[in-house]
Amino acid sequence: MSIKDVRFGFNFLTDTNIKACMDSVKELELTFACLPVSSLRLKSNSKVLDPSSTVMNPEFCQKWCHCVVASISLPNVDSEIESTRLENQKSFTQDISWASFLNVYCIMFELPLHGDVVNLVRLLDNQIDIYINSAVLIQFWALVPIVNLKTDPWKKWTKFISSIRNVNRIKLALEIGPELPSDEELDRWLGEPVAALVIQSKIFMTNKKGYPVLSKPHQKFIKKMFNIGCQIVISGQLGIKQQFNYLGYLYQNTTSLTPYSSDFISGFEDYLQTPLQPLKHNLQSYVYETFEQDPIKYYEYQRAISKALIDKYEDKVLVVYVVGAGRGPLVDATFEAAKDANIKVKISAIEKNENALPSLFFKNKEKWENRVTIINEDMRLWNPSEKCDILVSELLGSFGDNELSPECLDGAQNYLKKDGISIPSSYTSYLGPIQSRKLHAEISSIRKNNDNCNFQKPYVVQLNNVYSIAPPKPLFTFVHPKKNLEESNNRDGFLKFNISQDCVLHGFAGYFETVLYKDVRLSIVPESFSDGMFSWFPAYFPLIKPILLDKGEEIQINFWRCSNKFKVWYEWCMTRPYQSIIHNIKGEMYFMSL
Amino acid sequence: MSIKDVRFGFNFLTDTNIKACMDSVKELELTFACLPVSSLRLKSNSKVLDPSSTVMNPEFCQKWCHCVVASISLPNVDSEIESTRLENQKSFTQDISWASFLNVYCIMFELPLHGDVVNLVRLLDNQIDIYINSAVLIQFWALVPIVNLKTDPWKKWTKFISSIRNVNRIKLALEIGPELPSDEELDRWLGEPVAALVIQSKIFMTNKKGYPVLSKPHQKFIKKMFNIGCQIVISGQLGIKQQFNYLGYLYQNTTSLTPYSSDFISGFEDYLQTPLQPLKHNLQSYVYETFEQDPIKYYEYQRAISKALIDKYEDKVLVVYVVGAGRGPLVDATFEAAKDANIKVKISAIEKNENALPSLFFKNKEKWENRVTIINEDMRLWNPSEKCDILVSELLGSFGDNELSPECLDGAQNYLKKDGISIPSSYTSYLGPIQSRKLHAEISSIRKNNDNCNFQKPYVVQLNNVYSIAPPKPLFTFVHPKKNLEESNNRDGFLKFNISQDCVLHGFAGYFETVLYKDVRLSIVPESFSDGMFSWFPAYFPLIKPILLDKGEEIQINFWRCSNKFKVWYEWCMTRPYQSIIHNIKGEMYFMSL
Repeated sequence: MSIKDVRFGFNFLTDTNIKACMDSVKELELTFACLPVSSLRLKSNSKVLDPSSTVMNPEFCQKWCHCVVASISLPNVDSEIESTRLENQKSFTQDISWASFLNVYCIMFELPLHGDVVNLVRLLDNQIDIYINSAVLIQFWALVPIVNLKTDPWKKWTKFISSIRNVNRIKLALEIGPELPSDEELDRWLGEPVAALVIQSKIFMTNKKGYPVLSKPHQKFIKKMFNIGCQIVISGQLGIKQQFNYLGYLYQNTTSLTPYSSDFISGFEDYLQTPLQPLKHNLQSYVYETFEQDPIKYYEYQRAISKALIDKYEDKVLVVYVVGAGRGPLVDATFEAAKDANIKVKISAIEKNENALPSLFFKNKEKWENRVTIINEDMRLWNPSEKCDILVSELLGSFGDNELSPECLDGAQNYLKKDGISIPSSYTSYLGPIQSRKLHAEISSIRKNNDNCNFQKPYVVQLNNVYSIAPPKPLFTFVHPKKNLEESNNRDGFLKFNISQDCVLHGFAGYFETVLYKDVRLSIVPESFSDGMFSWFPAYFPLIKPILLDKGEEIQINFWRCSNKFKVWYEWCMTRPYQSIIHNIKGEMYFMSL
Repeated sequence: MSIKDVRFGFNFLTDTNIKACMDSVKELELTFACLPVSSLRLKSNSKVLDPSSTVMNPEFCQKWCHCVVASISLPNVDSEIESTRLENQKSFTQDISWASFLNVYCIMFELPLHGDVVNLVRLLDNQIDIYINSAVLIQFWALVPIVNLKTDPWKKWTKFISSIRNVNRIKLALEIGPELPSDEELDRWLGEPVAALVIQSKIFMTNKKGYPVLSKPHQKFIKKMFNIGCQIVISGQLGIKQQFNYLGYLYQNTTSLTPYSSDFISGFEDYLQTPLQPLKHNLQSYVYETFEQDPIKYYEYQRAISKALIDKYEDKVLVVYVVGAGRGPLVDATFEAAKDANIKVKISAIEKNENALPSLFFKNKEKWENRVTIINEDMRLWNPSEKCDILVSELLGSFGDNELSPECLDGAQNYLKKDGISIPSSYTSYLGPIQSRKLHAEISSIRKNNDNCNFQKPYVVQLNNVYSIAPPKPLFTFVHPKKNLEESNNRDGFLKFNISQDCVLHGFAGYFETVLYKDVRLSIVPESFSDGMFSWFPAYFPLIKPILLDKGEEIQINFWRCSNKFKVWYEWCMTRPYQSIIHNIKGEMYFMSL
């Protein structure tokens, strides 16, 4: 596993002596314990007060409190009787205040599955606000069972968390018993901020050798939850070191949910990045260095170039222009392809970034025997005397066209022979609806969030704590060379998706697939991913307002690619069943500079 | 030393082979090297290109570039001849672009000491802006000599840095030769963001044993610079391992510039904190725990209480009220004092924070033999049947009255006998003008900086990268008990300071001194600091606009303590020689809640 080491804890359901509890935590090599808040109070009725066993023990306060999750029993703070309501609110508030005073790791409460939560929401937001300017950071875990006979716990959770203002401070503790819901329902939790799984110890079975094991469905779900950084709490009988050992073993054998190899994505899970704009900003040396390491991409380019050379071969030297050559990896691929195909080539490398030029000159001298013509020019402005047979470029972004490959190749097409080949010869963007409470909260918390502008631009992000509501579908396609260069690169499209269960729509994952040449393809679409490739993470287009969707509904999203003389931008919205605002209208929040 | 380990580098003045240079860095166990940017370019005229010795070496790019400070020679970008000016700007920009492409640790250039810097400022800000949304973070070091025959280098630096918008990206590299200016002038650099000292190797002398040493004034200054996190570059001949050893030894023997023991301030240097408001927010358990560890404070309280008990003794039990008792350290001090003085006491402990009560009850049972009456009440509202002889409290903040001790003790005075004693019996706030480019930049960078509101509130901060322009002077005094309770706690004062050299005023350091009783005092004023005490860091009151002050001027600052029914706040401004705006008018930006 590439994610941070999992944390294990034990849930002490009944009032427990603190010293004994901390000894158990140490003995079981756990990192925390959940304790009823009553255990953390001084007992006024105990005859002899042994400081070593109470919260008055300074060692406990300094060393242990941050290892304690305080379980607070939540009385009905939304009771219909005013006096009861007020009394219950007071006692709940006092428990929160005491736990905060002790500076516990976090506070856990059972989310009520019936009745209103309006006062609960108000009370939690108020408590968080009180401490917001002090040094105290209260964190809450809402304990929710994964199944309930009378209601859908996910719906209750959604209703509750959607009303909370301080969403970053409240996470889920998901309780798992013997019974699990359908796979589809389980996957929906992947889009929620699940901080911990609370596992009832009774769900463990015993294998032939007498060791505790879990059913296959339980294993599968727990591994998925490990991927989104879940901590584990065992609830039930103590003396269960073997159960923790088993879970540790499960953890060690967990693999990434994404098609990316974990070597490359470690630390990037759900980390929002601004897309690169290589046309506007010159790339740095180490960026070239990193991307040049991709084990798949250049190999596939080489195969595509080789096939194109063979198709074009007419017993003469073929002219190949590598446009946007960077430090030269596609020049290398072209030489390799020419060697494979045993065809003579004449290569020019065009690169606008003057800082990449020394590398090209160096390689030309050291490796390419000075056979490459190197030009420091924007490919859109270059005007060579000779046209080429094959035009090779790597201008694609996470969403295909978002690094302005269409506009750049329109310029380059002027010096491609009429029957010449462009590699890539086409690319298609894909879009799929996703639920991710985490990404929504992350975007909310970015500074300078005026006009919700952070929700009106695309990101590049290794999607992880995410539920894919429906598989992505193809959106826009660009083909090179164009039949008619006057044809616009603007696009106007829409996609429809069927909703298979109740869920929340937070935004859209963007991917692309490209045909380099004939059957040689590269893809970051999950369903057709090029195994081992790491050059592109997915794109993400958020919505300002999350939208609650019902099972059986069909949603429609509309998407535009727009441009003027100076810039290109996307606009997007949901159209059915509700009309959302048009995001990034006129490209005011985000655009790619031409 | 408590600060992060110092970094050492060598300054290669002439074009150097990269491989040889990196070998030297390794051999001397340095962390970086300064290299002329020409060394980082591919030589087109070199006959044989050995990849291992050039920037084309991937290992160099990945591993070494962040260990390189690129020295760029700055041609006259402010030349009066337009064509020269443009040519020079182009070549300087290209050098910056190339160094950024390589992702070097930072870029160093010599600050021109003569002529204008307007185009230099424009060019640097533009270059920083270009990269501001990309992943590249360019850092610059402006190389400035510490003395110059014809001009004051500090003035040139001030003029330059005051015009820069991206101040956080440009720091100082201060070059030191054999000659040093006066101590006063040297100290002024303590208020500047000096990232590195560039030491000419020729300033080293040889001692009797043949080892390199530095003069006492050089030692003293270098140690001060270590305290503000300075890195060290040696410039001159290589083969100077012993010089670095000597500097490492100096570093090990450097002690804090502040009166605080380094055990307590490590990591807090120049770290801006919002002052605590214990009256508004209940303190947490670990906060009590930390402050109870102060080795000096409670000892002095005990001495003061003991003296007061002896003065009050009339062969009867004395009544002592500890108001704002927290977890009880002053109750302990009172018992100890009573034992010392051999006088019987009757103690009540009043505390409004209900979460601190269990600790008080616990100690009463376990330690105080149930002899303390514990009351959970705001001291301003309590109404006991009996009045006390001695009122003990610890309600002071970094600026004395800023945690609302005057208002709280006004309430408590109602139950202090007419001839009773308050401990503390008085406290005085102090204020001194300071220069700190670093704190000014830090405050500028805090988010939500509307209306410059972050410059209109006080901070608590362990002042470190700071030049004290003049010693602090007493401002407001509060005496307890008051002769007349109707007397207001509002204050209106002003202070005058003489400016001994040209400098920049960024704000005011706040301190306090308290008379606990008779000759027993506590102080955080640097000139009278209570050695070993760590309970309070200084306060800092910033100014929105830094003010350039001239030697020989007298400045006047005006300061107000204001209040209404609900809050108390400070207002401040500079009045002479210029009138600044009144900061925090009406308490709109910052106030203490009553």
